Amino acid sequence: MPSLSELNTCSEAQFVSALGNIFEHSPWIAARAAQQRPFASLIELFAAMTQALNDASDDQRLTLIKAHPDLADKAQRAAGLTVESTQEQTGAGLDRLSDREYDAFMGANTAYRTKFDVPFIVCVRRHTRESILREFNRRLQNDKVAEIKTSVAEITRIAALRLNELVVGGGLPVTGRLSTHVLDTHAGRPAQGVALELVELNELGGERLIARAMTNADGRTDQPLIHGRPLPTGRYRLTFNVGAYFAEHGVVTSDPPFLDIIPICFALAEPEGHYHVPLLMTPWSYSTYRGS
Amino acid sequence: MPSLSELNTCSEAQFVSALGNIFEHSPWIAARAAQQRPFASLIELFAAMTQALNDASDDQRLTLIKAHPDLADKAQRAAGLTVESTQEQTGAGLDRLSDREYDAFMGANTAYRTKFDVPFIVCVRRHTRESILREFNRRLQNDKVAEIKTSVAEITRIAALRLNELVVGGGLPVTGRLSTHVLDTHAGRPAQGVALELVELNELGGERLIARAMTNADGRTDQPLIHGRPLPTGRYRLTFNVGAYFAEHGVVTSDPPFLDIIPICFALAEPEGHYHVPLLMTPWSYSTYRGS
Amino acid sequence: MPSLSELNTCSEAQFVSALGNIFEHSPWIAARAAQQRPFASLIELFAAMTQALNDASDDQRLTLIKAHPDLADKAQRAAGLTVESTQEQTGAGLDRLSDREYDAFMGANTAYRTKFDVPFIVCVRRHTRESILREFNRRLQNDKVAEIKTSVAEITRIAALRLNELVVGGGLPVTGRLSTHVLDTHAGRPAQGVALELVELNELGGERLIARAMTNADGRTDQPLIHGRPLPTGRYRLTFNVGAYFAEHGVVTSDPPFLDIIPICFALAEPEGHYHVPLLMTPWSYSTYRGS
Amino acid sequence: MPSLSELNTCSEAQFVSALGNIFEHSPWIAARAAQQRPFASLIELFAAMTQALNDASDDQRLTLIKAHPDLADKAQRAAGLTVESTQEQTGAGLDRLSDREYDAFMGANTAYRTKFDVPFIVCVRRHTRESILREFNRRLQNDKVAEIKTSVAEITRIAALRLNELVVGGGLPVTGRLSTHVLDTHAGRPAQGVALELVELNELGGERLIARAMTNADGRTDQPLIHGRPLPTGRYRLTFNVGAYFAEHGVVTSDPPFLDIIPICFALAEPEGHYHVPLLMTPWSYSTYRGS
Repeated sequence: MPSLSELNTCSEAQFVSALGNIFEHSPWIAARAAQQRPFASLIELFAAMTQALNDASDDQRLTLIKAHPDLADKAQRAAGLTVESTQEQTGAGLDRLSDREYDAFMGANTAYRTKFDVPFIVCVRRHTRESILREFNRRLQNDKVAEIKTSVAEITRIAALRLNELVVGGGLPVTGRLSTHVLDTHAGRPAQGVALELVELNELGGERLIARAMTNADGRTDQPLIHGRPLPTGRYRLTFNVGAYFAEHGVVTSDPPFLDIIPICFALAEPEGHYHVPLLMTPWSYSTYRGS
Repeated sequence: MPSLSELNTCSEAQFVSALGNIFEHSPWIAARAAQQRPFASLIELFAAMTQALNDASDDQRLTLIKAHPDLADKAQRAAGLTVESTQEQTGAGLDRLSDREYDAFMGANTAYRTKFDVPFIVCVRRHTRESILREFNRRLQNDKVAEIKTSVAEITRIAALRLNELVVGGGLPVTGRLSTHVLDTHAGRPAQGVALELVELNELGGERLIARAMTNADGRTDQPLIHGRPLPTGRYRLTFNVGAYFAEHGVVTSDPPFLDIIPICFALAEPEGHYHVPLLMTPWSYSTYRGS
Repeated sequence: MPSLSELNTCSEAQFVSALGNIFEHSPWIAARAAQQRPFASLIELFAAMTQALNDASDDQRLTLIKAHPDLADKAQRAAGLTVESTQEQTGAGLDRLSDREYDAFMGANTAYRTKFDVPFIVCVRRHTRESILREFNRRLQNDKVAEIKTSVAEITRIAALRLNELVVGGGLPVTGRLSTHVLDTHAGRPAQGVALELVELNELGGERLIARAMTNADGRTDQPLIHGRPLPTGRYRLTFNVGAYFAEHGVVTSDPPFLDIIPICFALAEPEGHYHVPLLMTPWSYSTYRGS
Repeated sequence: MPSLSELNTCSEAQFVSALGNIFEHSPWIAARAAQQRPFASLIELFAAMTQALNDASDDQRLTLIKAHPDLADKAQRAAGLTVESTQEQTGAGLDRLSDREYDAFMGANTAYRTKFDVPFIVCVRRHTRESILREFNRRLQNDKVAEIKTSVAEITRIAALRLNELVVGGGLPVTGRLSTHVLDTHAGRPAQGVALELVELNELGGERLIARAMTNADGRTDQPLIHGRPLPTGRYRLTFNVGAYFAEHGVVTSDPPFLDIIPICFALAEPEGHYHVPLLMTPWSYSTYRGS
């Protein structure tokens, strides 16, 4: 990984080589930004790249759009994608779709290409599979001008994430955070040792495990449930094994216990947001809320 | 349905005919109770019947136990059960078991008969399929003396339910109640028009819909979710469609809404208990508890 | 107390004698209503009286307004008020004002008479002393036409309350209700034996005890805290002695206990509303809300 | 303020001069500890001082106890206390007692001296005035041996606090923390701009303002309500002005608002504990709990 200072001082060829795929198959954007060196921050470097894209002609932007692969397409994946595209698509699980999901994606790709004559582009790291399909449907209502604009905005989001991860230390405001906290209001203290699980919900493709953790002495998980990346918008379920927790602490309840596995279903809608979803509980009651 | 006063004044033959199957295939219990007429209440009538059972010999009680069918057995069902047994078993869904459940029940029946040489008897209306299997496993640990005693106690529970439903007005303390209440603490009023659903949970056999309702102007359901019968002990999930409710009231949240379908999982452990499981909610928070 | 049927069948003189002070010093309203007998309900009887008031001339309504005493005036009280006015004013504590309150009321009376040349009329049973003073200040902003209309509306409210209490069984929708409920979510059951106290808050005149009670086996008070009358709008504090409750149940907490006396401050704004103010609590947490 | 390294390297005379009053009027304790230099941490230095106290004779410890002033005594304050004692007593408000409190303290001092023939010693910074009086009453039940032991323990606590504040950077585990957090669950975000106030409650001497603050963008106060010192055990009330907050945000409620000033009364019982007392609220509901 290069540092900002290395990018500021290396040769132009090295600069373009390092940043050539920040915008998919488009080293010319890096080449134009290289003229503006040095940059005081990664935010400034990225601003120079987006400026180059804005200054380009409509044709150049259309070519950039067309340089992107279709989402989830097995044939294209077999034929080879950029390393970046492959990682993004597999990170979102687009290489492990259920049959019904694959059909839904292929149908959406076809409908989109038929209407707009370009591939559908979305920053998949900000989405779940379910929300990508919602985006397809939503954007199919657009006209072509609006859709070109939306595609460029999504390409810019993809580029920001690629750049943020490529350069040592990052610094672009492209990440969100999801955390939890379990309070035992029966004993008046943080609940240590509660097993919990986060799954992504998906009408077509079932559930997908995202994180599994045990609460620590402060009732929190050692790491946030999602962090250091955008929050994929979509629906989730967080479950807490409170029956086992109270049993371990010798709290006598009923058999079976009134509360055992507590599920909390919620949606993430702001990829760069901070979501805190705590649980306050006794063996007979609980509360949750969007905290901070 | 006869009334208590009719049972007090009819002929002994009519009395025995009416109550002959309160204890399975055992009109002799009704015949003995008939001598004690008149009864001031159904509770007294039932006390006379249980007294007759207690005064009987060990052999008579063993014969009564053996008069009962095996649970869930298709062959026996085909061969014919008492009307009462058939209703009880189908009411608990024992005629619609998944293959895995059927195997589990048949295995348990065999293990139980092998150890105790009598059919396994349990008051199925106080149980879910899952809790019946738990009872099998728990009671298989007993010795024969304890198990005969337990069987008689279960037979007495079955008889109390049969009698309570047979006689106009009932009056035996054999019923429980499960209710809910939805409060909109965003607007400070009962939440009217929230669709909700109660399902029974079952590890082996999936979910089973128990009730579906819409909250009324007071935020309650017009009828309790379960009432007029014992609460089947077991695990349940109650879901509330609060996303639709807030959308109808024009409350702006996020897209998708942070909270949409709220699930509450809980267990009923006291068949004759009163369980109240309310929901206090805003678009961003909720609480539940065992109320009264 | 007469019944509706007695009022329907008695002589006109008896009818007017019974209802002559429903509207202060104005038997002519009862006399006109008497012509409409019989009435199917108290609501119809009252409608006939309000119709008589609406059909009267402006001068007659002004005379009715002027027939009312000033609020809280000791000199007028010494000179003699109607029994009804005396009860209403003492019921609201207007005969036991602090010096600062008395000065505030006398100042307000004077300002009001100076501007409008009539006494200030308000249905005191729907108010606390503090909210009467707020009404003075609010209504002093009105013009004379609006204020005459407001006075007639208040007179009608006073009359409805007088009529509702005079006739056996009542039946006019003029009452509200304030209730509470204490749930012990540490033990998962209603909290029995929690001492509680309701006081009216008043910036000028301190606090005034309204009710003191102990929760029963269902966690409720045997009677609602206020019922069978309008809720006086104003500010209140409800306190619950939960420290003593948990100590009696042997629940070990800290010394002194984290929670001991829990105060809930709230305002009643709808005199004919139903307010339910429950408390859900453990030794370490609590919630309250406007319930139903 | 000296640093640990300066204390490790200065002359013994300087060391004793700096730490001579850590234990009241007892430089001999510092002198003995000086022999153990250098110390790797302040904890080790303090351990050397307490060791010196433990190694001393019973007479020496009794002399140390008698070197302490009576609590709250005006005559002794006029005659001159150590700077440390003066600060501790005024910090706890012992120089501003109500008449009833002063009488209570003087009565307790006399009763204590009469029984034990030594001054009553307590680490006042860990207490409120109310809890000091409770300690008096509790410890008056002790016998002399237990009381001497308790006095030495309190002297050690006083010394630890004095040392922790004297040396740059501190490092002894002698501080607690009280914090709050206000969540607006009506809007699903931290509540910024809520005015709040913390007062100490005291049966004999009324209320005493401890902190006043406004919540920031994260719903917290910029500084914890109490921090960097022990939490004085006793009873407190925290009030939140939520009526003004919701009015500023244009949230329509009732007039007057159902909730306006929310009071939370609680006790602090662990001087070195971390207490978090959050408020989750809508215009119609709220919760609080001991958090972390």
